[in-house]
Amino acid sequence: MSDSDAARRQARQAAERAKAASRGLARTTDAQRKAALFAMAAALRSQSARIVGANELDVAEARSAGTAESLIDRLFLDEGRVESMARAIEEVARLADPLGEVLERRVLPNGIELSRVRCPLGAVAVIYEARPNVTADAAAICLRSGNAAVLRGGSIAARTNALIASVLSDAATSSGMPAGCIEYVGAGGHEAAEELMRARGVIDVLVPRGSRRLIDACVENSTVPVIETGTGNCHVYLHRSADARKAADIAVNSKCRRFGVCNAAETLLVDDEAAEALLPAVLADLRKRGVTLHVDERAGLIAERAGIATVRASEADWECEYLAPDIAVRVVSGIGEALEHIERYGTRHSESIVCEDPNAADEFTASVDAAAVYVNASTGFTDGGEFGLRAEIGISTQKLHVRGPFALEGLTTYKYVLRGDGQVRA
Amino acid sequence: MSDSDAARRQARQAAERAKAASRGLARTTDAQRKAALFAMAAALRSQSARIVGANELDVAEARSAGTAESLIDRLFLDEGRVESMARAIEEVARLADPLGEVLERRVLPNGIELSRVRCPLGAVAVIYEARPNVTADAAAICLRSGNAAVLRGGSIAARTNALIASVLSDAATSSGMPAGCIEYVGAGGHEAAEELMRARGVIDVLVPRGSRRLIDACVENSTVPVIETGTGNCHVYLHRSADARKAADIAVNSKCRRFGVCNAAETLLVDDEAAEALLPAVLADLRKRGVTLHVDERAGLIAERAGIATVRASEADWECEYLAPDIAVRVVSGIGEALEHIERYGTRHSESIVCEDPNAADEFTASVDAAAVYVNASTGFTDGGEFGLRAEIGISTQKLHVRGPFALEGLTTYKYVLRGDGQVRA
Repeated sequence: MSDSDAARRQARQAAERAKAASRGLARTTDAQRKAALFAMAAALRSQSARIVGANELDVAEARSAGTAESLIDRLFLDEGRVESMARAIEEVARLADPLGEVLERRVLPNGIELSRVRCPLGAVAVIYEARPNVTADAAAICLRSGNAAVLRGGSIAARTNALIASVLSDAATSSGMPAGCIEYVGAGGHEAAEELMRARGVIDVLVPRGSRRLIDACVENSTVPVIETGTGNCHVYLHRSADARKAADIAVNSKCRRFGVCNAAETLLVDDEAAEALLPAVLADLRKRGVTLHVDERAGLIAERAGIATVRASEADWECEYLAPDIAVRVVSGIGEALEHIERYGTRHSESIVCEDPNAADEFTASVDAAAVYVNASTGFTDGGEFGLRAEIGISTQKLHVRGPFALEGLTTYKYVLRGDGQVRA
Repeated sequence: MSDSDAARRQARQAAERAKAASRGLARTTDAQRKAALFAMAAALRSQSARIVGANELDVAEARSAGTAESLIDRLFLDEGRVESMARAIEEVARLADPLGEVLERRVLPNGIELSRVRCPLGAVAVIYEARPNVTADAAAICLRSGNAAVLRGGSIAARTNALIASVLSDAATSSGMPAGCIEYVGAGGHEAAEELMRARGVIDVLVPRGSRRLIDACVENSTVPVIETGTGNCHVYLHRSADARKAADIAVNSKCRRFGVCNAAETLLVDDEAAEALLPAVLADLRKRGVTLHVDERAGLIAERAGIATVRASEADWECEYLAPDIAVRVVSGIGEALEHIERYGTRHSESIVCEDPNAADEFTASVDAAAVYVNASTGFTDGGEFGLRAEIGISTQKLHVRGPFALEGLTTYKYVLRGDGQVRA
């Protein structure tokens, strides 16, 4: 058997063990799952030194392979970070049970009692990249929602992830969860991940967490349903009725709060009529924060007259999710052109209009097709915590099942339960 | 340009026109969409003779190609059937608007007002087979829910479908709906359908309506989200505590109400302990209705002693969705083995237990992973109408987004609308 066949087989077997475990998990009680999560947190603490040791080896190997320090930082664990992982699991344990909720109940004319009941999805695969805390986080979220987890982390964190998963799995099964409830797929290159993507009927949903490339690969290659998360080419649009102070605050905050996040603004659109009045201050603020301004011709002229350095934007800038101190700037003829630009280049994540005209606000919120549509607020608020959701899993940029920030309920489905007394259909 | 390139291009253009129309549709009012639907129904009536004429050509061609009469019957239209299509559109028009509902609203601690609002998905592609009434039905359902429709019917009904779609599209646009709101993709073989399946970012969801082969092809090849519908390998399980009368009624009704439907039972499972007592009557009833009994060894012996003709089942029978007067019969050791069988061979559609023991009922409903789980009732009830849903689109056998029978709401999503007063995030 070739290495890649072996990797596929290992991934398939992990998925099947998880699927088998999911049947038992669906029948666990809230108290049982809660207890298992506390046991998992305790096990992480007690195995902290071993985990840090395994992580040292991963870090050393990554360093000697010339890995960038920013990536090393994401990979790195110390006892404090392990403690944070344990605490995060306990927080998930304390969340309300998402299962068993009766979404509707009624008696049909024929006397059958129909209930629609929330239940787990089954086996959830999570494919992710450098951060080992995702291993603990994903395992906890899946288990809390009654799902078995099939975890596939980046090879850079191979030892760390495998050990964390094994510690968590042992703790969970020791406290009564079915064997297979937390499976880690360590071996193999892309073949192992591909096998998970094609395990239709075994894996119930795949949640990629990471770069756009990873997410695109999952969507392109999966036959199992994927929850697309987290890529954001977000816009701030300054309507001609915009208040100058709000315009500057919101543009700067949306861009600069953190550069590497999916809810950061990547393009600033401004109405022609108000560009002369609004742009100089906004662009100067952005420059002060070290942001490179990729401008169209009109914005370039305004910046030049104000003595602000810019570079000329090309088509690629409108499409680009910089995740960096760069912003594209374009002058539009009005809300119609702004909406067209957002429709064409946006990724359905977060879009904001700055305006005092209520009609413009209504047109924008009705027309923009995105998970979160803002009026006079920063795109930076698109976040589970900010929205009042606990234990965010990701921010869905798709429209089916869940949209925007989603948490435990996003890993549940429902079934109809119908109780009769011998009814047959005419 | 080759024919297949031309077909791809035509499909792509239709999808893009629909996508463009979807932006306008999202801003239409309930009254506008309602009026368009009544205009569409009226147009079908006024063009009834032309539609019947086009259909005669399709029928003649199908007949001369040696098409089976059962398929011809699905294809065939007369003025009565066109009138039924018009009435069905009017019924959809009268349904409550699924859009605009505010699913939640709250003020965040920072003063931003958050609303979660129901809105259309956008451009919905429907790929279907012989029945031309699906053209009208799908167009009406999409428009009612504010979506643009991209329709792709079977080539056997090419003239009929193209004319119906054009009549409906003209009527809709004449009453103010945006051009492109109903697109029909007539040309091309599988290339055109494939293009729709791969139009990620243009088509928002694909709903295949037809055979398992069609649905599997869509799931395997699509990068756009698919709502899987309608294949059912459903089971009736007779628990040892089953009432003999209910057992026979439910088994016979689940199998024989209609043979060709997805909610028909295809396998009968019976507890070993009760097989001698229950099976002879049930199998005799099924034989009386002309059902061929594909039995395992144990059931075969019981049938033989009762003088009932059977054939021996193989692995293929457990997997088979007969959609015909055939049923597989297997004796199991108890509820555990029954659950394993259903987990292995079921298609997550409808499963029924016949039992008087409430613990068995609870175990079955908690454990079975299916859209509809029955206790003491026929699987034949899995149907939008029976469940109290109006305008069923299909029965989803997937777990994300919608599960079981679904109607207009299944073609909607939500967005978060956030109204602030200049808020930025720390």
